[in-house]
Amino acid sequence: MNWSSVPDSVLHDILEAVSFNSDGLITAIAQDETRHVLMLAWMNKEALAETLKTGRVCYYSRSRQSLWRKGETSGQEQHLLSADLDCDMDAILLTVRQKGVACHTGRRSCFYQSVTPQGLTENAAPDISPEQLYHSKN
Amino acid sequence: MNWSSVPDSVLHDILEAVSFNSDGLITAIAQDETRHVLMLAWMNKEALAETLKTGRVCYYSRSRQSLWRKGETSGQEQHLLSADLDCDMDAILLTVRQKGVACHTGRRSCFYQSVTPQGLTENAAPDISPEQLYHSKN
Repeated sequence: MNWSSVPDSVLHDILEAVSFNSDGLITAIAQDETRHVLMLAWMNKEALAETLKTGRVCYYSRSRQSLWRKGETSGQEQHLLSADLDCDMDAILLTVRQKGVACHTGRRSCFYQSVTPQGLTENAAPDISPEQLYHSKN
Repeated sequence: MNWSSVPDSVLHDILEAVSFNSDGLITAIAQDETRHVLMLAWMNKEALAETLKTGRVCYYSRSRQSLWRKGETSGQEQHLLSADLDCDMDAILLTVRQKGVACHTGRRSCFYQSVTPQGLTENAAPDISPEQLYHSKN
């Protein structure tokens, strides 16, 4: 899909249809091409518009209260392949091509802590150390 | 995994480790065995505890402000296969065996509205009508 070809009027209609919450946000799930769920984050209208226009995933950081262009610091970018809204129009499922890892711990996915009868156990080791992640843009 | 075998002390430690937000909630993503993302919903501590104890997925309905035992009205239950928490401990990925459909519109997944350069298009038709869904417990 060529995201840059989305006409402004279509983009406007999509953004108007989305149901942002009282903080102006929707929930975003990112999965890769194999449907491996990578992370959950948030988007405001500006982040969603930028993501659809550029094809590069941009979230909204609630802690920093600003746009969060995924990979800007770490180099671990997400390229948008497709996007699907849910029935309530307040959650979006992004299918992305993930460069490297999604998690700030250096793991491919943020969902690495499995609930087991023995307690929480890690289901994946880091592919890269956080130090490497945030000191080289590779 | 035999969820009923989770000792109370382990369950207690897991629930204590989870980071519920100021409304007492975490975000829950449900996917099926093929990693098809079905829905996004919310859980409070009670819903998460019940889900882990019984192996039947129970959410918290923000609109009804009460526990929402998935399938209680529609018969479309979710049986828990595994659960993974994310790095921030405020989101959980549930892998479930979905009986029938997850969406109240009768579709398998709630994420049926694809964003395309032509606007929103439906990527799936209902498997069952909402009328059938809520008038028979099959």
